[in-house]
Amino acid sequence: MNRILAVGAAALLFAAQLAADPLPSWADTEAKARIIEFVQSVTDPDSADYVFPADRIATFDNDGCLWAEQPVYFQLVYALDRLRERAEADPAILTSEVLEAAAGGDVKGMLAGGKEGLMEVLAVSHAGMSVEDFQADVLAWLESARHPTTGRRYDAMIYQPMLELLQYLRAEGFQTWIVSGGGVHFLRAFAAETYGIPPQQVMGSAAPTEYRVIDGVPTIVKLPGIEFMDDKVGKPVGIDSRIGKRPIFAAGNSDGDFQMLEYTMAGAGPRFAMLVHHTDAEREFAYDRDSHIGKLERGLDEGPQRGWLIVDMARDWNTIWPAD
Amino acid sequence: MNRILAVGAAALLFAAQLAADPLPSWADTEAKARIIEFVQSVTDPDSADYVFPADRIATFDNDGCLWAEQPVYFQLVYALDRLRERAEADPAILTSEVLEAAAGGDVKGMLAGGKEGLMEVLAVSHAGMSVEDFQADVLAWLESARHPTTGRRYDAMIYQPMLELLQYLRAEGFQTWIVSGGGVHFLRAFAAETYGIPPQQVMGSAAPTEYRVIDGVPTIVKLPGIEFMDDKVGKPVGIDSRIGKRPIFAAGNSDGDFQMLEYTMAGAGPRFAMLVHHTDAEREFAYDRDSHIGKLERGLDEGPQRGWLIVDMARDWNTIWPAD
Repeated sequence: MNRILAVGAAALLFAAQLAADPLPSWADTEAKARIIEFVQSVTDPDSADYVFPADRIATFDNDGCLWAEQPVYFQLVYALDRLRERAEADPAILTSEVLEAAAGGDVKGMLAGGKEGLMEVLAVSHAGMSVEDFQADVLAWLESARHPTTGRRYDAMIYQPMLELLQYLRAEGFQTWIVSGGGVHFLRAFAAETYGIPPQQVMGSAAPTEYRVIDGVPTIVKLPGIEFMDDKVGKPVGIDSRIGKRPIFAAGNSDGDFQMLEYTMAGAGPRFAMLVHHTDAEREFAYDRDSHIGKLERGLDEGPQRGWLIVDMARDWNTIWPAD
Repeated sequence: MNRILAVGAAALLFAAQLAADPLPSWADTEAKARIIEFVQSVTDPDSADYVFPADRIATFDNDGCLWAEQPVYFQLVYALDRLRERAEADPAILTSEVLEAAAGGDVKGMLAGGKEGLMEVLAVSHAGMSVEDFQADVLAWLESARHPTTGRRYDAMIYQPMLELLQYLRAEGFQTWIVSGGGVHFLRAFAAETYGIPPQQVMGSAAPTEYRVIDGVPTIVKLPGIEFMDDKVGKPVGIDSRIGKRPIFAAGNSDGDFQMLEYTMAGAGPRFAMLVHHTDAEREFAYDRDSHIGKLERGLDEGPQRGWLIVDMARDWNTIWPAD
C-alpha cells in the first residue's frame, strides 16, 4: 500500500502546484488564458468538448518552438564543429569546395552547394557510424559547445514557457510528441532528458539506416543521404505514419509547421494550434517574414483567421530561458 | 481524493488477479515459467536485473504470433475480396492477367506475377483513398468476412495466450508494440480494440502517402507501391526509426522475425526472445520449415542455442482462441 500512497501523495502535490498556476512563466495575457481554457474544456468529463486521454495527442516542432534556432540551426553547428575537427586531423577529407568552405566556417559558401552540398557536410558527421556512437557524440558535443551570443549550453537554449506547457499537457493526460525538421537521431540524444519526451515520441527528418551484424553485434548503421524530410507536408505525412491519429494540439513557429497545424485543426471536435512568434530581439531574437531560418509568413497572414493562437514572445512570456 | 482511491482500488484488484495467475491460458510448462521469471526479474526493484519502466519495450509480430495466418495472410484475403467485388461491378478494372487471376480466386496465378503482380492487386484495395476511408472499409470487411475453416471473424482468430501475455506485460509496466510485415494502416484499423495497442505503437509495412487538401479538408491519401517493408532486417531498422531504443522483449513466429529477436537479445542486461511454433494441427495449424507462409527454419535451428524460448503451441497453450 505504501507505493500507492506515495503515488497518491505525489499526484496531490503536483495537482496543488498546477492549481496554483500551471504556466508560471507565461504572462497573464490572452495567450495563456486560451491555452488553459482549451485544456480544461477537453479534460473536464462534464464538458461537451471532453476528449478521451487516448486521443490527447500534442505535437511540437523543435527548432524555434522548443529551443532556439538562431543564428543557425544548432544541428548544423554540430555538423560544422565535427567537420572542422576531422579536417584538422586529416585535411584529405575535404574533397570538395563545399566541404572546404564548411570546414573554414564559410556557411554562405557551403550553402551555395545547395542540397547536395549540405548532404556532403552532414555525411561527415552523421553517417558511417552506429546510432549509439552518433548519439554519444552528440551528447559529448552538447557538454562542450556553447551558444555564440548567450554563452549557454545549446540544450539550455530551451524555452521555459514551452517546458511548462509540455509538463502541463502531460499532467492533463496528453501524450507530447516532437515533430521536427531536425534529425531524429540527433533529437533523441537529448529529448528525454531535456524535454521529458521519450525517443518513441520523437519524429524528425531521417537518413537511411542499415541493419548489420558487426563482429557478432547487431547494429543500426547510419548511412548518408535523406530518406524522410519531416517538414511542411512531410509533417502530417510523418504524423500519420508514426502516430496514426490526428493530434488535437499542435505548436510550431514557422511556415514549415503550417501543414501540421492545418491538419491538426481539420479534425472533428476541439482543436488547438499555436505559433510562437519571435518578437523579442532583446531577450531572444526577432524574425519572421524575411528570415532565412524559421521564416514565418503564411502562418502570420492566415493563422489568426483560422483561429490559431499567435504567441508574441515579448508580450506573452515573462521568462525565456530556464534558470541555470 | 475519490479518483486516487478508485485508481488504488483498481490497481489492488488487478494485482490480486495477476498474483493468482497472470497467464491462465498457458499450460504449467517451462515456457510459462520462463516468461514469468523474466518479467519478475526486470520489475523487482531489488533485483540485479531491474529495468526502469521507460526501457520496458516489448515488440510483437502479428501474423502467426498474435493472430493466425493460414491458409493465407488475412490482409491478402481482404485485398482479394475487395478486388473481386469491384471487378463484379466493373470488369474493366481487370487490366492484366494478374488481376484477372486474383479476381478469379486463382492465388497461384496471382503470385506468378511476382512482387509487381501483388502490388497491382494491393493497389486496387489499398490505394487512391484516404487513410480514414481505407480503415472504415477494413472494419466493414471484418464485420462480414469469416475464416474458411473455423468460421470465426478474422479478428477473433487471435491467440488467447498472447492476449494474456500482452496484458500481463502492460500491467507490469511494459509498453507493447506491434512490429508486423502487414500493412500499418490495415493493422491500426483494429489493433486498439483487438489487442489494446494504440495506433502509435503499431508499425508495419507501408505504402507511400501524400498530404492533400481536398475540398478544403487536409487529408492523408494512400498511394500505390511499398515504401517500407517491415520484415527481416526491416524490423530492427523500423524499431530504431520508430521506437529509438532496443526492446528488451520480442516475440515472433517466423524467420521474418529473426533479426528483430537477434537485435533485441544483443542489448546489455536481461533480454527475452520467443518464437511461437505452430505445432497444433488439430486446434490451429501445424507448419514450420516448408511453409509458404510463416516459414520457420533458422529460428528453430539457432533459437534454442541463442537462449530463445520456442513455444510449442500444442504443449504450452491450454487454449488457442478467446471465448466468443
